[in-house]
Amino acid sequence: MTSARPWIHDIVLDPPAINNNTADADRLAHALKIKLGIRPHISLALLKRLPRQLRDGGFHVRCIAFKHDDAWTLLGVTRPVDAAPAAVAVDLGTTRVVCRLVSLITGDRLHEIAFDNPQLQIGPDILERIHCADLAGGLNRLNELIVHSLNQAFERLAQACAISRADIYLISLAGNTAMTHLLLGLPPRWMIREPYIPVSNTPGFLPAADVGLDVAPAAGIRIFPNVGSYFGGDLIAGILHCGMHTAEDVTILVDVGTNAEVVVGNRHWLVACAGAAGPALEGGVTQMGMMAAPGVIDRVKIDPVSRRFFLHTIGNAPPIGICGSGLIDLAAQLFLAGMLDLRGKLSPATCGERLIAIDGMHALVVDETGKLLISQADFDSLIRSKAAMYTILETIVQTVGITFDDLATFFVGGTFGSFIRPESAIAIGMLPDLPLSTYRPLGNSSLEGATQILRSSADADQIDAIRDNITYIELNVNQDFMNRFSAAKFIPHTDADRFPTVKAVHRQT
Amino acid sequence: MTSARPWIHDIVLDPPAINNNTADADRLAHALKIKLGIRPHISLALLKRLPRQLRDGGFHVRCIAFKHDDAWTLLGVTRPVDAAPAAVAVDLGTTRVVCRLVSLITGDRLHEIAFDNPQLQIGPDILERIHCADLAGGLNRLNELIVHSLNQAFERLAQACAISRADIYLISLAGNTAMTHLLLGLPPRWMIREPYIPVSNTPGFLPAADVGLDVAPAAGIRIFPNVGSYFGGDLIAGILHCGMHTAEDVTILVDVGTNAEVVVGNRHWLVACAGAAGPALEGGVTQMGMMAAPGVIDRVKIDPVSRRFFLHTIGNAPPIGICGSGLIDLAAQLFLAGMLDLRGKLSPATCGERLIAIDGMHALVVDETGKLLISQADFDSLIRSKAAMYTILETIVQTVGITFDDLATFFVGGTFGSFIRPESAIAIGMLPDLPLSTYRPLGNSSLEGATQILRSSADADQIDAIRDNITYIELNVNQDFMNRFSAAKFIPHTDADRFPTVKAVHRQT
Repeated sequence: MTSARPWIHDIVLDPPAINNNTADADRLAHALKIKLGIRPHISLALLKRLPRQLRDGGFHVRCIAFKHDDAWTLLGVTRPVDAAPAAVAVDLGTTRVVCRLVSLITGDRLHEIAFDNPQLQIGPDILERIHCADLAGGLNRLNELIVHSLNQAFERLAQACAISRADIYLISLAGNTAMTHLLLGLPPRWMIREPYIPVSNTPGFLPAADVGLDVAPAAGIRIFPNVGSYFGGDLIAGILHCGMHTAEDVTILVDVGTNAEVVVGNRHWLVACAGAAGPALEGGVTQMGMMAAPGVIDRVKIDPVSRRFFLHTIGNAPPIGICGSGLIDLAAQLFLAGMLDLRGKLSPATCGERLIAIDGMHALVVDETGKLLISQADFDSLIRSKAAMYTILETIVQTVGITFDDLATFFVGGTFGSFIRPESAIAIGMLPDLPLSTYRPLGNSSLEGATQILRSSADADQIDAIRDNITYIELNVNQDFMNRFSAAKFIPHTDADRFPTVKAVHRQT
Repeated sequence: MTSARPWIHDIVLDPPAINNNTADADRLAHALKIKLGIRPHISLALLKRLPRQLRDGGFHVRCIAFKHDDAWTLLGVTRPVDAAPAAVAVDLGTTRVVCRLVSLITGDRLHEIAFDNPQLQIGPDILERIHCADLAGGLNRLNELIVHSLNQAFERLAQACAISRADIYLISLAGNTAMTHLLLGLPPRWMIREPYIPVSNTPGFLPAADVGLDVAPAAGIRIFPNVGSYFGGDLIAGILHCGMHTAEDVTILVDVGTNAEVVVGNRHWLVACAGAAGPALEGGVTQMGMMAAPGVIDRVKIDPVSRRFFLHTIGNAPPIGICGSGLIDLAAQLFLAGMLDLRGKLSPATCGERLIAIDGMHALVVDETGKLLISQADFDSLIRSKAAMYTILETIVQTVGITFDDLATFFVGGTFGSFIRPESAIAIGMLPDLPLSTYRPLGNSSLEGATQILRSSADADQIDAIRDNITYIELNVNQDFMNRFSAAKFIPHTDADRFPTVKAVHRQT
């Protein structure tokens, strides 16, 4: 059943009479069973309010109900004239959290807010938080931080739309496995210890109150399922959003957030892996500083002849730093201008005055004030990152027995996907040399996927099947892998023929 | 599936390995699905403890799980060497509450305690409590009284058996509809207003924590379903216990507690009614003071010739009052001795010195000290009660198109059933004149029925079907009914031929 409002059911009940005197809940459940095919579950929180709600509405009521795992749960009952019921889609990121208020009647996006994950104060990365969760009171503290901030966000969303938090009946949440565990108060201890075991990959559909979320009393929260410790619900939401699980052609989805996760496949099969699989890659694709803010350089152009720099900053403010996409642009342009060599080293011969030495290490002066420096170490780190990325991509396509050319579409998700220019990523050999039209940025695919199940029961029905259909492969960091990784640490690659468009441009310089 | 321990499943899990690294909950759910046929629901409370429990037991665990409505819910996980998991059956009466601790391993009764329903301090009868629930804070107060006393009882049960409250995983509770509502905090307001609508007849299976019961964190409570406001889960438990729903012969079950409920039928059909159906019966079968205590007269014998009284008191203590069964004995013996006439009036000619007048009303001196008096008003009340009882019985058998002689067994439940002597009840025309072997006292059938589902999944599976199979008939207090009631207000009846054994004895006096 897919409709504009799959979770809303307006019901006109026969009022009680001496010859029709079943209980309130049984009367409503019977009417809903006729409509839904199954008697819905009605929680105690809802039962307590039901007599008042049925009578206030003259037994003409609007029911909010959600289907999960072939079972329906009643989330609330209102009068049709009451404030319109709403839902929230949550992208629970390690760094940023985005909450989007959606009308359950129209499916419209009503409002959206984003905020830093307050667990950043405990630790910027997942590992630190998991270690903290092991300390006495640590898990509780991490849990309370995120729950409290979500409640605040729900309050702000409600106020912005002149509704009440109690008008929020459904929450759809996609996050990585660790963030999901911390939200639910589940100990993540075993996720980071071999063999990397989460508490649950399928928390499913829970009472929002059990999670501490203060919305409608019988509201529910649908948690996107995880494949494993390193492939979370945010990716399942991304797959749902890009639709690769329904396509006949083989496509690939790469999401680079805190980690790099890759899934390749079509409607018949899906194979996934994640970049945190081994120590060789640790930090490999994560240290590119993605934070975008005014003054951060996000685009770079270098004239290959004059070697003059053209810098673009966010908000056109004076440059204060560089973000991931800016750094990739910079490296690509430096390489094409001959200022960065095949090994990713700054070339004294071509960098000229822009090259300085600090503590015996080369650094590049990026801006005209001379204050913004990118060290050789930063470039080395980038080269490792891009090599890791390319090696993961190469490994997964080889594993499934295809080549890059077989990919009909290359979805790039996450913050990375929104800002990166594929031509630059190709130029440094981070992404394969495919036609630019193959690349498609997905934006916040986690949030979009989470939103979809608020609007479509068909989509809601699919997410467990998507998860179950994924074959997760451990990235075996063996000699083969390390050989590929070493080959990918050149710009664009030791085998330049793999990057014909780059080879063509590079020759010209 | 019926076994000695249907809710216990010992599971040996494959420990996590790099090539078998699903999540803890999914690993356990998968193993349980193989055993149970269905993946069980695992609550968040349980998920939080699961990693520790699995590892403490070396992935060899004992699972406590309950099936309801074709779904399994995991209630707890222990090591096989831990304290044996237990359950509690509760008979939630208006006046008395009985809690029985049962081993989920052996099914044995471990301990039992009874206490007065603390809501008695609000009001002795249901109606007063329902009115109280309508006042501000009233429902909360009633709810807290019973929840608190149950938690205390669970603590006492646990201590008596040297276990912990956290070893109690399952609660099975049978009570009348009003008591069930007050336990769950459901507003009973509409139950006592035409057309008498409960909030829910089928609360089903709930997390014990939702009800405020402090036992194992993920424990569940199975509430016996109601048929309606005046036919509650205690009766369903009684039917389960006496087994009338599986018999080929037609039998009848009468339960006289605060109310009189009757159900007649066999494995093919069940028809029920309750004695609180109309104002003509209000208080009709309820004012017989059932409280049994030391010194209360529970048996009376009168020599029909000498008219000498032989009184038996509980504990053989000096007489301080009389209970329902004692009063029925007394009336029967007085009638057979010619001291009570056909209309239930004390006869001056035969009572002699035992008859005194107080404020212009006759009273009978029962004991030798002359302090224990039973007034004519008490006898009048008894006559109304017995007439109501007989009329209800007559009406229901007529309604289903049978006669009393068609009844293979006459089950008498409740406190009434345990103590009453059928021969006395027949003598005053309260129960029909059937062979004494037809009558079978059931004891606390509500508690026994509640206990059965802790031991047998087949029994647990049946209770919703029993409820659904019952046709509840409203006792139409029309002219026909009133005519039958008037005829039954004689001892034993205006039509003495209906009571041949009484007629035979009465003639002899």
